[in-house]
Amino acid sequence: MELRNSTSSRNSAIILIHCPDKKGLVAAVTRFLAHNNGNILEIDQHVDKLSQVFFMRVEWDLDGFLIPDDQIESEFSKHIGTPFDMHWQLYFSREKPKMAVFVSGYGHCLYDILARYDSGEWYVDIPLIISNHPHMKQVADRYGIDYHQFDVNQENKPEVEAKQKELLHSYEIDVMVLARYMQILSDNFVADYPGRIINIHHSFLPAFPGARPYHSAFQRGVKVIGATSHYVTADLDEGPIIEQDVIHVNHRHSVEDLARKGRDLEKIVLARAIWLHLERRTMVFENRTIVFQ
Amino acid sequence: MELRNSTSSRNSAIILIHCPDKKGLVAAVTRFLAHNNGNILEIDQHVDKLSQVFFMRVEWDLDGFLIPDDQIESEFSKHIGTPFDMHWQLYFSREKPKMAVFVSGYGHCLYDILARYDSGEWYVDIPLIISNHPHMKQVADRYGIDYHQFDVNQENKPEVEAKQKELLHSYEIDVMVLARYMQILSDNFVADYPGRIINIHHSFLPAFPGARPYHSAFQRGVKVIGATSHYVTADLDEGPIIEQDVIHVNHRHSVEDLARKGRDLEKIVLARAIWLHLERRTMVFENRTIVFQ
Amino acid sequence: MELRNSTSSRNSAIILIHCPDKKGLVAAVTRFLAHNNGNILEIDQHVDKLSQVFFMRVEWDLDGFLIPDDQIESEFSKHIGTPFDMHWQLYFSREKPKMAVFVSGYGHCLYDILARYDSGEWYVDIPLIISNHPHMKQVADRYGIDYHQFDVNQENKPEVEAKQKELLHSYEIDVMVLARYMQILSDNFVADYPGRIINIHHSFLPAFPGARPYHSAFQRGVKVIGATSHYVTADLDEGPIIEQDVIHVNHRHSVEDLARKGRDLEKIVLARAIWLHLERRTMVFENRTIVFQ
Amino acid sequence: MELRNSTSSRNSAIILIHCPDKKGLVAAVTRFLAHNNGNILEIDQHVDKLSQVFFMRVEWDLDGFLIPDDQIESEFSKHIGTPFDMHWQLYFSREKPKMAVFVSGYGHCLYDILARYDSGEWYVDIPLIISNHPHMKQVADRYGIDYHQFDVNQENKPEVEAKQKELLHSYEIDVMVLARYMQILSDNFVADYPGRIINIHHSFLPAFPGARPYHSAFQRGVKVIGATSHYVTADLDEGPIIEQDVIHVNHRHSVEDLARKGRDLEKIVLARAIWLHLERRTMVFENRTIVFQ
Repeated sequence: MELRNSTSSRNSAIILIHCPDKKGLVAAVTRFLAHNNGNILEIDQHVDKLSQVFFMRVEWDLDGFLIPDDQIESEFSKHIGTPFDMHWQLYFSREKPKMAVFVSGYGHCLYDILARYDSGEWYVDIPLIISNHPHMKQVADRYGIDYHQFDVNQENKPEVEAKQKELLHSYEIDVMVLARYMQILSDNFVADYPGRIINIHHSFLPAFPGARPYHSAFQRGVKVIGATSHYVTADLDEGPIIEQDVIHVNHRHSVEDLARKGRDLEKIVLARAIWLHLERRTMVFENRTIVFQ
Repeated sequence: MELRNSTSSRNSAIILIHCPDKKGLVAAVTRFLAHNNGNILEIDQHVDKLSQVFFMRVEWDLDGFLIPDDQIESEFSKHIGTPFDMHWQLYFSREKPKMAVFVSGYGHCLYDILARYDSGEWYVDIPLIISNHPHMKQVADRYGIDYHQFDVNQENKPEVEAKQKELLHSYEIDVMVLARYMQILSDNFVADYPGRIINIHHSFLPAFPGARPYHSAFQRGVKVIGATSHYVTADLDEGPIIEQDVIHVNHRHSVEDLARKGRDLEKIVLARAIWLHLERRTMVFENRTIVFQ
Repeated sequence: MELRNSTSSRNSAIILIHCPDKKGLVAAVTRFLAHNNGNILEIDQHVDKLSQVFFMRVEWDLDGFLIPDDQIESEFSKHIGTPFDMHWQLYFSREKPKMAVFVSGYGHCLYDILARYDSGEWYVDIPLIISNHPHMKQVADRYGIDYHQFDVNQENKPEVEAKQKELLHSYEIDVMVLARYMQILSDNFVADYPGRIINIHHSFLPAFPGARPYHSAFQRGVKVIGATSHYVTADLDEGPIIEQDVIHVNHRHSVEDLARKGRDLEKIVLARAIWLHLERRTMVFENRTIVFQ
Repeated sequence: MELRNSTSSRNSAIILIHCPDKKGLVAAVTRFLAHNNGNILEIDQHVDKLSQVFFMRVEWDLDGFLIPDDQIESEFSKHIGTPFDMHWQLYFSREKPKMAVFVSGYGHCLYDILARYDSGEWYVDIPLIISNHPHMKQVADRYGIDYHQFDVNQENKPEVEAKQKELLHSYEIDVMVLARYMQILSDNFVADYPGRIINIHHSFLPAFPGARPYHSAFQRGVKVIGATSHYVTADLDEGPIIEQDVIHVNHRHSVEDLARKGRDLEKIVLARAIWLHLERRTMVFENRTIVFQ
């Protein structure tokens, strides 16, 4: 009944890298690890041919690794990161991310997230739920999670967002999930958390952005509907896509049927995106994601 | 934020019919309804060409229908059911079915069922959860649902099942869901509830029946894994299939990865099957289902 | 090795109906057939709840039917069509439609159509292929199909389209398929063949209409790509959708990979749409299709 | 209108490797290439955790590579292959594989293969078609491909297979495709071409092996049907799976409908498997495939 089979169950380190492509990059990184007795658990790389940019995710076993944990950063920087002009980030799999969930009136994504949290499927802490509605407080209470409700409107948004930032700060939140949160975050707010806010939109973007996508899908008479999880940027529904999926529909489905079938899609697509983020398998480049599955 | 868009939101009646195929069946049923001022909301039919058996599901509006509710059964029987030698069943959409959930150590299907129940997505009562483990009691408690735990083994199974039947009877249970319940029900037990026990099996049946299908799938090196929801019969994993779905996998997926990805599939496939059953959209014939979507 | 299992293998008639919804419609049509000893082979209906419009497709066996073929139209009109204010169309399954294929430089859809034609999968005649390129002449020649090439540009389009209409007329063409035909037909041309021109577009519409959808999909970083088959109307890529499907892609796929994977999707989606049209299973209403599968 | 975007359009070399897993493997291979000025175009690796076996596919640009083509094999062997106890195989992307197609009475897979061949989608030669029926000769003739028909039965099978082997030898065939070939090859025949015979089976294996899978699928009342492409081994329908896919079906589908819908699946799944093989993206280990997409 062990549910986790993620990196979190290992004593490992992960480095995410991007840099200008050149010969010898894979050799340099893998040699650095081999030289220090690091056993590679997973390695994956990608080259964006148009931009000539190299991406890599490598995870290795810390057991037996010759460099102490607190010196890996400086050693990697000295021998690899700086010489190859890399942007890179080091993670330890034992570090448990802290996640906040934003929700409004529809609870299906929140229920699903909390079920995974409660059953230990994800390696994450969820200390905070933020909402513009009272509806989901009862759900939060069941799991003993703090629930903060804000009545947001055009006038008080700057003030509310300031308070929300304080909360996020005090709870040391690493990543936010908009679980069908029906408020638009300000550009300022979004800019403070690049690549750290995950949204679920109830259509296969770029089709049907904005409000009421199931109504639009019905009007257009499409034969598939979809859901899209993406990182939030200043451009509404235009951020880099992490995960998408669709299901078939037909002329018999009313708008309500589309919404009903779509809810299942939304929660699964969002959960997959969250899992990929928590496992440090996503990178963003030029408004697209590299997802190392 | 109304989630239901099912028959339950209507004041309607549903008849499910099967009988030997002959000319004039659709005409007879629809004329009976039209003659009594019944507005058809949904009608669907199917003919099994090999067996020459006719199936129909018809739902009509009770508002304005000239026959009082308590006389529909006798009137339909006299004018249609008996003359055409039909097997048929009348339902009123306002009748709320009572469902019991059986669960063992894996909670993902149970969490999903209770989330739908709690949010009002389904028109159903869930007064009873039965388990052979203590693990899910806490989950049941959160929703205030009675949780009965039975330690089952080969010796005490008849005795335990007798007690379970008593419970099912006292709670007036209409339908049972085996939400990853890892005990095999006896033939006697199953025989008492034909077409009323819904199981989820974690493979695309008939491949990988029985125990540990994800291990078998891994061993065989399949490129898709699946989940199957079916009515339980005396033949293990051989009952009529209500719903199936699959996802793609590849050589990188360990058995644990298959199980993790499979859980999402299982809960969605089971939920679809339950919804179809609750909406009275399923019929069973010769170990296959007719599903009027 | 009989490939056809369509209506064409039967001696049957099909009526497609749409009219204002009212009580008794199904009863009236089915009673008319039963009264004249018509055995229903398939019947399906749909009510558009918003517009209160009723749709029906019914197919019945002509063997034993009491009304001679040449009087069905007038009898149905007198007893059913006119009294119920129906729009309706009668087809005999023995009538073999004549189809023209328009193609440009990409041949994958044409190859697929001709393979199905040659193997007898579809009940159709394909006497004519029209192109703005010479490339596919060799393919047409292999199957002995007349190939007419037109060099189209903005100036000569009216003149070319006039000649094409002559050809379509002289070959008695019932339905046209744009099999990746990269020319835009004029509004006048399209208006002459409502619901009789089927296009395939290489995206999941309404996303990525117009030119180079795979380039746009790549730029946007979508995780699924799609294909859409629709009836052509004056609004480019906005006609009623018959069929859509998608496949998953990821960051590794170049534009060329998307195009390669997309081609398989395009030909299958187009073939499904053609089959549905040839079987008279499609109806158009308010820019959406009703597809009686 | 360039269709190929495969390795064949590059001046590159590919090495497929498997060996016991140990630290430093990736470093050793990539350093060998970097040291000789080899620019890596694609690299992918996999470790089978249970067996502790390492797999790699690496492709690099030959332009500027310091080792002459005819010495790569010996150099790699000396510095990498032998020291690390590797099984490995070198390919040059300019080498065009020769493929034979075996076919019986159903032509849909053959049509699809020849369409791709004719349009230049694949980098392959197809000089030979072998059949136990005369039906497809006309199709072969259209493309100018030699067609050899053999009447096979239990008695003459050894003799026929001997003649087929002669043909395969004289045409220098690298890979065989059983495109719905309804004859079982002898164990001896299969043993002579390990990992070089690709079959398409019309079910999602391991469900419904053997004859008439669509009939069995109909009988069992499954809600999805599938197709499986695999390497042929002595155990019928039990060889390592390269590719699988499924589509949804329902109670309305007759056996003929399943076969009709399944044909589209078969040809696409087979084509994907052939493409993966031609691109040298498949490896076989313990009856499973590693597929480097």
